Order: sequence, then C-alpha cells, then structure tokens
Amino acid sequence: VPGNPDAPDLIPAILRGDLRQAAKLITRIERGDSVPSDLLRSLYRAGGKSQVIGITGAPGSGKSTVIDQLLTSYRRAGKRIAVLAVDPSSPISGGAILGDRVRMQRHATDKGVFIRSMSSRGALGGLAKATGDALTVLDAMGWDMVLIETVGVGQNEIDIVRYASTVLLAETPSSGDAVQSVKAGVSEIGDIFIVNKADQAGADRRVQGISAMLHNAPGKSGWFPSVHKVDSISGNGIENLMSCIDAHAKFLMTHTQARKERLLQSVKHQMLWIMQERLARRVLRAPQPVISEAELDALLARRTDPYELAENVTVGHDF
Amino acid sequence: VPGNPDAPDLIPAILRGDLRQAAKLITRIERGDSVPSDLLRSLYRAGGKSQVIGITGAPGSGKSTVIDQLLTSYRRAGKRIAVLAVDPSSPISGGAILGDRVRMQRHATDKGVFIRSMSSRGALGGLAKATGDALTVLDAMGWDMVLIETVGVGQNEIDIVRYASTVLLAETPSSGDAVQSVKAGVSEIGDIFIVNKADQAGADRRVQGISAMLHNAPGKSGWFPSVHKVDSISGNGIENLMSCIDAHAKFLMTHTQARKERLLQSVKHQMLWIMQERLARRVLRAPQPVISEAELDALLARRTDPYELAENVTVGHDF
Repeated sequence: VPGNPDAPDLIPAILRGDLRQAAKLITRIERGDSVPSDLLRSLYRAGGKSQVIGITGAPGSGKSTVIDQLLTSYRRAGKRIAVLAVDPSSPISGGAILGDRVRMQRHATDKGVFIRSMSSRGALGGLAKATGDALTVLDAMGWDMVLIETVGVGQNEIDIVRYASTVLLAETPSSGDAVQSVKAGVSEIGDIFIVNKADQAGADRRVQGISAMLHNAPGKSGWFPSVHKVDSISGNGIENLMSCIDAHAKFLMTHTQARKERLLQSVKHQMLWIMQERLARRVLRAPQPVISEAELDALLARRTDPYELAENVTVGHDF
Repeated sequence: VPGNPDAPDLIPAILRGDLRQAAKLITRIERGDSVPSDLLRSLYRAGGKSQVIGITGAPGSGKSTVIDQLLTSYRRAGKRIAVLAVDPSSPISGGAILGDRVRMQRHATDKGVFIRSMSSRGALGGLAKATGDALTVLDAMGWDMVLIETVGVGQNEIDIVRYASTVLLAETPSSGDAVQSVKAGVSEIGDIFIVNKADQAGADRRVQGISAMLHNAPGKSGWFPSVHKVDSISGNGIENLMSCIDAHAKFLMTHTQARKERLLQSVKHQMLWIMQERLARRVLRAPQPVISEAELDALLARRTDPYELAENVTVGHDF
C-alpha cells in the first residue's frame, strides 16, 4: 500500500524523494489519519536541509503570482522546489484559492517542482499541526527549497508561517486601513514585506507606510525587515526580492542567536499543536468517555460546569 | 471598571442582564484576556434557561436575513433575544460579514434584542473556546433565546454550533456539488435544513437532494431532520421554520436520552477547547520556557525533534 506509514521501506522512499509515497503520506496527514509519531520523528531528524520560505497575505494580494515568478527564477538557477499551499477553508469557499493554483500549473510538468495544496477537513489537530507534519515530509525529501503559502486571514494562518525560516508578507497598494490595523500583529513575524502590483497608484505611499510602521517596531534580533515593490505579472522587482531572501538566509546562518530565537518561537507553536492534537484524540476519540453518566446528569442540572469537568480530566502519561 | 472580572458585583450585574457589563466582559473574552474560570463557572451554573439556536451556512446562503426574519417574528411573540455572530476571519476579510450585520441593525434600538459579533483575533484558545465563554455570559443574562451564527467554512465553525440545542443549516438552490460533498460531515450535526432563496429555480430539487441525503443518514436518537423552503426576503416559510424549531425544542424536552447525547457531544468539544486554551497558555506564555537551551541546541542539530520535545513537556496538576 503506497504511503502506508507502517511499511518498513517508507522512510528510505521518502528520503530518496519518492513523489508518490510522499503525496500519499501527506494525504494521510491531511485527512487526520493517525500517522505514527516515530515515522515523523525519523523524517524530521533526517531533514533540515531545505530552505523554508513562508509567504502570506490577504486574498487578492497576488501571493500565487509572486510564487509563480519565484519558481521560474529559482528553477532557472537550478533549484528544486516544493510548494505547500495551505488553504484554511473547506471546499465550500475554496474555489478562489484553488483557482489561484492554476497560475502555478505551468510548473506542473517540471520534475524539479512539486506543488501540493492542503486544507483542514478532517485534521483533528487543525491545519497548523498537519502543515508541520507535511513540511517534515517535504523537508526529508531533500528539496532545495520549500515554499509555504497561506492566506493571511486569521491568527492560525499567520502562526503557520512560523515554520519558515524566512517569512514574506504580501500586500498591494490598495490594501486598506483594515489591513494596516492587522499588521500590528503580523509585522512581528514578517522578515520581508512585498508591495505587489507596484504599477498601481499608491505603491510608493504604501511602501512608505509600511516602512514607517517597521521603523517604530523593534528589530528582530538584529534583522531589520525591508519593503520591496514587486510587479508579479511582469516580474519587475523579483530579482531584488530574491536577493533579499538570500540576504536573510545568510543573516540567519551567521547569527546563531537570531536563528535560535526564531526556532524557539516556531517550535513552541509546533509543540503546542502536537499536544493539542493528542489532547483532541484523548477527549473526542478515546474508548473510555471523558465524562461519566453521573457528571452528565450533574451538568444537565447545572450542578457542575464544563470548566470544572475539564479540570478533572485525567491526562495520563501517554499524553 | 466595567467588566472587570474581579469586581465583586459583576456576577449579580450579569445575572440581572446589565448590557454594559456583559458587553465589556465579552470583549475581554474576545481579546483573549484572562477571565477567571471561577467567574465563568458561577455564570454557567446560574444559566441554562435560554433556548440556544445555532445557524450556519456558506457565505451567501442568507443566514443573516433568516436571522433578521426570526428576530422580527420572535419579538412579535414577546421573546427577548441575543445574537452572537461568530466571525472566524480577521478584519482582513471581515468586510462582507460585517456588512451582513447591517441587515440586522434595524433591531439595534430594540431593547429586547442584543446583537454581538465576535472574531478570533487574540483569543489564545481559538474562537471556539471564546464562543463558549460568551455564550455562558449571554445565557446567564436570562435572554429567552440566544442565536449563534457562524459562517460554515471549516470544521471549527461547524463544531461551534454544537453549543446550540437546535442547529439550523442554511443553503440556497444554487449551492453546488462542492457544498454537497461537505454536507456528509455537516449533516450529522444539523437538526433543521433550510433551503433559502426558495423563489430561485431549483429550490424543489435542492430540497429533494437534501431529503435523499438525510434519508440515507441515520436518525439522531429519534429526531429526523427536516428540510424547509424559506424566502428570507419576503418572509415566506419563516412561520413554518419557527414551528419546526419549536417542535425540536419539545422533542428534546421529552427525550432525555437524545438531550443527553447531544449535551455529551457538545460538552466534550467545549472541554477540549478549554483544555487546549490552558495548554496554549502553558506552552506559549508560561514564565518558565517549555524547552531548555540544551534542547534547542539538540533541535538545531536535529538530534531531537518537536514530537519528542512535546512528549517531554511536564503538564502539572494546574493543567
């Protein structure tokens, strides 16, 4: 069975970059099927060689076309790249995002590119946990780069890009004040800001606005985020953006403390999501119910409450 | 300080329906400020009198106009109603949903109606936990009914309506096959299905399609979900819908086992969200770091991994 996580030859297959096995395993992860943590642990320890880049931004910020341009340029430079497009919505509203995927499809026949989208249906631990597991698989496969794309619409999606060592935030000249107000929270995780659709009116003003905001924010352990104008349709500004991505990677290489600080932030979140998933399996799926018949009766009579019941759940060593 | 959760007179104020205090407390909950669980526990135990109705559906299904009609009709019947509109998105994409709110605004000057929206920014335990806490506050205030509205775009939003004792699922004749495919998961939590915009072509076919799907699904401990055509603009079908909501409430009143089964499902999820939030505070906010400097070094060298580190986190009795 391809992708069977108990198959003895699955780890070597992933490590040598077997696309079919990897895709099947990621599907299992996405569906929320139980994947042995031993397998993920082995893959994680074998990985760490891919350069992981995260890109987020509101719908309409043109993330997909930026990625399309980056793919073209990095491929020209001989890099092998995987893209993990994380879609927080279910199929109900997923149309627009799946439509965006089409723009990247011209890379679909290129064996040096692997594009994979992921949505949250079924994943008991949520999309964030599943994204980390999928990244573990892609990283173990030995891609030169892994790009993680998320729609920046909520705290969860924003937190997901923490898996990346370099985080790009995309917006447009017409991104309004609503976006600005969110940026207070977002700016602390962005390494590089992109003002896309730079041919539109107001691009320079937008760059100035972001620069002013960044000026007031503290630097991130020595790295000062920069702002880049990009026209992802024509490709203008992409070379410049790539140089900056490169500079950030070099910065992390030479600044161990900065590297550790962001790893700490990232792994704290990943650990939380791993633990939260385990908790969900315990509370929602365990054979022994988490509350007794008597407790349920007490709840109906309002003699107890969910807050008290939650405190009484025994979380064994297995947790 | 209004809404100060440590103020001794806050509980009596909420119980007598003080709008200002309740609104401030819900804001604290929404922002993810720490609200003492003692306070929530007292409010929960004092509550349980409101009829809680959940309504979910994809964007464009006309949930807000259905609610608008329900508000008008229930107000005519003398009921006092609170609406909790749960918006999973951040301000970035929140425009459309906030726009919908406007339709309900004609009730804004009616003292028998309280409309409150909630989004997820800041809530460490996620929107689901915060929604439960807000519902605890509203329920304690003594409203005859509380309507919870969520956009049905992900598992999380679907799970949130479990707080309700009666769950309405809204769709339209033009809801496509994509929606249908999701329904497999959604149908198990819906008590009443609404085909809104029933003046559009295909309404009867949609009703038949849902009925056929429900026919294949097992009944929910004796309750068989029904399908109702509604035109929420003209109000046609609303009386019929209200009768069915009433019938479901009576069903739960007389079927203790069914009532217990859905309470069990609901409270299991609520307990999980309470525990997950506590876990998040421990992992992300605790004064003592969850991983040591040595563990971080081992992680950088890939001698350990987040899965192993997560297993080693000590979760004390306070958890």
